[in-house]
Amino acid sequence: MVRMIFLLLKAKILGLEAEKPIVILNRSDAEEIDVRPLDRVEITLKRKRGTAIVNVATRFIKEGEIGLYGEIADHMRANPGDKIYVSPSVPPESLIHIREKLTGKTLKDEEIKKIIEDVVHRKLSEIEMTAFVIALYNHGMTKGEITSLSKAMTFTGETLDLGKKLVYDKHSIGGVPGDKTSMVLVPIVAAAGLTIPKTSSRAITSPAGTADRFECLAPVDLDLDDIKKVVKKTNACLVWGGSVDLAPADDMFIKIEYPLSIDPLLLPSVMSKKKAMGVKNLIIDIPTGEGTKVNTTKDAETLAEKFIELGKMLKIKTVGASTYGEQPIGFAIGPALEAREALRTLKERKGPADLVDKVTHLAGILMDFKIGSGGKKEALRMLKSGKAYRKLREIIEAQGGDPGIKPDDVPVGYKKAEVKSNVNGRVGWINNRVVVEISRAAGTPKDQGAGVLLHKKNGDKVKRGDTLFEIYAKKGYKLERALQIARKSKVLGIGKEIQMLIEKIPARIEHPKYFILER
Amino acid sequence: MVRMIFLLLKAKILGLEAEKPIVILNRSDAEEIDVRPLDRVEITLKRKRGTAIVNVATRFIKEGEIGLYGEIADHMRANPGDKIYVSPSVPPESLIHIREKLTGKTLKDEEIKKIIEDVVHRKLSEIEMTAFVIALYNHGMTKGEITSLSKAMTFTGETLDLGKKLVYDKHSIGGVPGDKTSMVLVPIVAAAGLTIPKTSSRAITSPAGTADRFECLAPVDLDLDDIKKVVKKTNACLVWGGSVDLAPADDMFIKIEYPLSIDPLLLPSVMSKKKAMGVKNLIIDIPTGEGTKVNTTKDAETLAEKFIELGKMLKIKTVGASTYGEQPIGFAIGPALEAREALRTLKERKGPADLVDKVTHLAGILMDFKIGSGGKKEALRMLKSGKAYRKLREIIEAQGGDPGIKPDDVPVGYKKAEVKSNVNGRVGWINNRVVVEISRAAGTPKDQGAGVLLHKKNGDKVKRGDTLFEIYAKKGYKLERALQIARKSKVLGIGKEIQMLIEKIPARIEHPKYFILER
Repeated sequence: MVRMIFLLLKAKILGLEAEKPIVILNRSDAEEIDVRPLDRVEITLKRKRGTAIVNVATRFIKEGEIGLYGEIADHMRANPGDKIYVSPSVPPESLIHIREKLTGKTLKDEEIKKIIEDVVHRKLSEIEMTAFVIALYNHGMTKGEITSLSKAMTFTGETLDLGKKLVYDKHSIGGVPGDKTSMVLVPIVAAAGLTIPKTSSRAITSPAGTADRFECLAPVDLDLDDIKKVVKKTNACLVWGGSVDLAPADDMFIKIEYPLSIDPLLLPSVMSKKKAMGVKNLIIDIPTGEGTKVNTTKDAETLAEKFIELGKMLKIKTVGASTYGEQPIGFAIGPALEAREALRTLKERKGPADLVDKVTHLAGILMDFKIGSGGKKEALRMLKSGKAYRKLREIIEAQGGDPGIKPDDVPVGYKKAEVKSNVNGRVGWINNRVVVEISRAAGTPKDQGAGVLLHKKNGDKVKRGDTLFEIYAKKGYKLERALQIARKSKVLGIGKEIQMLIEKIPARIEHPKYFILER
Repeated sequence: MVRMIFLLLKAKILGLEAEKPIVILNRSDAEEIDVRPLDRVEITLKRKRGTAIVNVATRFIKEGEIGLYGEIADHMRANPGDKIYVSPSVPPESLIHIREKLTGKTLKDEEIKKIIEDVVHRKLSEIEMTAFVIALYNHGMTKGEITSLSKAMTFTGETLDLGKKLVYDKHSIGGVPGDKTSMVLVPIVAAAGLTIPKTSSRAITSPAGTADRFECLAPVDLDLDDIKKVVKKTNACLVWGGSVDLAPADDMFIKIEYPLSIDPLLLPSVMSKKKAMGVKNLIIDIPTGEGTKVNTTKDAETLAEKFIELGKMLKIKTVGASTYGEQPIGFAIGPALEAREALRTLKERKGPADLVDKVTHLAGILMDFKIGSGGKKEALRMLKSGKAYRKLREIIEAQGGDPGIKPDDVPVGYKKAEVKSNVNGRVGWINNRVVVEISRAAGTPKDQGAGVLLHKKNGDKVKRGDTLFEIYAKKGYKLERALQIARKSKVLGIGKEIQMLIEKIPARIEHPKYFILER
């Protein structure tokens, strides 16, 4: 296409931040170069070039001016008054492939690569990315497409090369509250001599992510160089994936998937990040049951098989594990409360039965990759001998935390409330969804010290007046809000033998739609 | 859901315009009420309430402040420093129905109504609206859904009640350049005593819309009251649909459809606007052939049947017409050039053969609704007798224009270039797509006087050195740009008998993807 059209406009730096590169043109200038709101323009300042999305103003930006949001101003190193060339941008080629996928076509490897590159370079608008995500959701993906997506997502971001042949990792697809498994598993596995550079996420829809939890013990926002140093020193790390630029396309997709409650990119999202970290042996934890993401073991098997298959294509030896997920793991829910529980488990060499069993099972499977069998026993030995605790201290120290930190040193919310039982009986079930809701109402994940501490779990005997759980919060009104939900909802089912009624429908309290997006 | 959470923030008016109600919160405040970028919040100031989309800043907006874009600031009548209550908004109920449609479910009438209401009230984000449009595109719509959509789009906007039983209208689905049919047809039909309150669009992807053309003769941005007065006085009007709030949801959908080059909402879009204008008898013009939107008469029939069927559901008697669209209508392309040609045709009571034939055919079909048969002859009589020209003058005057305006009074671009033939022969075809491209490069629709004036059309004899067409522009560089396209492309096919080669593939010049979105 002939491209002679441009404007020379005076920069106005807006000090506004969006998560997109936005420029604002005067309506008349926009019409002059035939661009409409949300169209893209190419902008050039000296030798710097960039693509930006157009917003249009009639008064705020005058004719002859261009307003730049913070991100694009930084990228262009633009100063107020700089003269900037602006021309309409040709729609990216990848848009053609997105349109093709919309009609159900199977995309080729290089077409997918082009799309992911344009996503990462912010060349696609929200509308176009939404079209792509929904096309994947509606038409599904072939194995080839999933593999191409995973690779493209991996190699458009940073990658870690530890120069080792064997890198191990564990990943949970999430969905069960209080799951501090990684915090206990990583020191155990590393104590046994395996290399496990664990990156993890912060909470999206849950009360806490592993990164939120471990942050209560040590900094987690390490860059790739620091991660390398920590792993060389300790065989392990526990860091926030977001501080490394792993598979950055995924962050863009999450923004689309979250409001629509769809998650077509789960597999490439998880596996591209593992690939980027150089993982060779992987265990995928699939919490299973009512109130989790995967409701039946049959579904868990199907999902595990997909991970295993994709693993083969990416040269990552993968094993799946369906684990019981119908009640929280351990007793604590919320970053600080969970950090305390994990730290205590390692320090005292024993902890909640379900947590210890889950951790040693999964750690055992990882260790079996190396030693063939007997992994679970060996994992338990690492815990009982105190080696895992020493490893945890090493990791905390290497990441810049205080290795001497004790469970009670971790600050938790000082506003507390207890919820007591008004019946005698036995706990039949715990409603994960309501526990999550109470915990988030109390302030998690933002208020790290907030959360829920269960006193009773499935099978426990309860007497009238016994404390069922405590709620921790940083602020009074949040505690009140959490309590209000706790009062109106059935959190634990307690009955003579077993309490069968979970919820009356319609319920007295309307629960928000429950969509778990954790990766 | 329990909704006790809110913040009381100090208003900062940003003087920024977006086409969406955006507020900017400090990151910490956003986390405090658990909202993420692009989530919605409800804001309250005194008794005014509104829903806004959240952007997040860390520096530009301080903790305790809320930045308001122009639209939402106006809506809330907010002044700097006002204290505004902000709370997270429950996702609109219609989102559930959008998700259902994504999975292929057929939506009920009231569900569609809810979606359209939320679109119009800006309660849905771009991501969510995109999801809806693509769901319609992928899963299609039942007749019931199309009818519900049309009604919902009609009744979420303004409607015109003329108190007359019979209101006539003509609509073209577009796709052929130079189509000034409506400008000539409306005065003819009105002169014959039929009521025809014509609303039309401005160009989206074409060189000119009817509103752009008629604006060269009289103001077209009339509100509903003014339209009523004009129609009562003259039986007709020729106004811009955008100045009336007809089926406002459509404008939002167009923003999504345009970048994706998909148009699933064509039928409800057109018919909801007709319904809003109280139309009872309608002719749908479907320009047909290579280089238009509908390539074969078979496709035209299928589309016409859909319009007829939907018309029945909406109580609009509808007839379709497939018309020859493989070359421009008349000789002029571009708002002012076309206004001249239409005005001249009415004033001189004769005009280009194709234009006059098309106009009288379509006007005839409309008149046959009333008189049964002989409409075409009657239409021609209105033109030849000068009654149509007198009617045009009435309409121009009623809308606030100068009824004495002569064709040469309409200003056209004074930068001109002629393109001549270097061969002898006969015109076999004209490439609509290239004509559009040249015309837009020359400045249309923004520069009203720009465009293309053909000197030769299909079947015309051409001698070497004859002018094939002229290009008009307002600015030199635009003329140059248009010429560059004209030189490198085949605009007219001229051969001894007929020139069969349209384009070498790959071509020397890369034409942009050709998607016509005109309604």
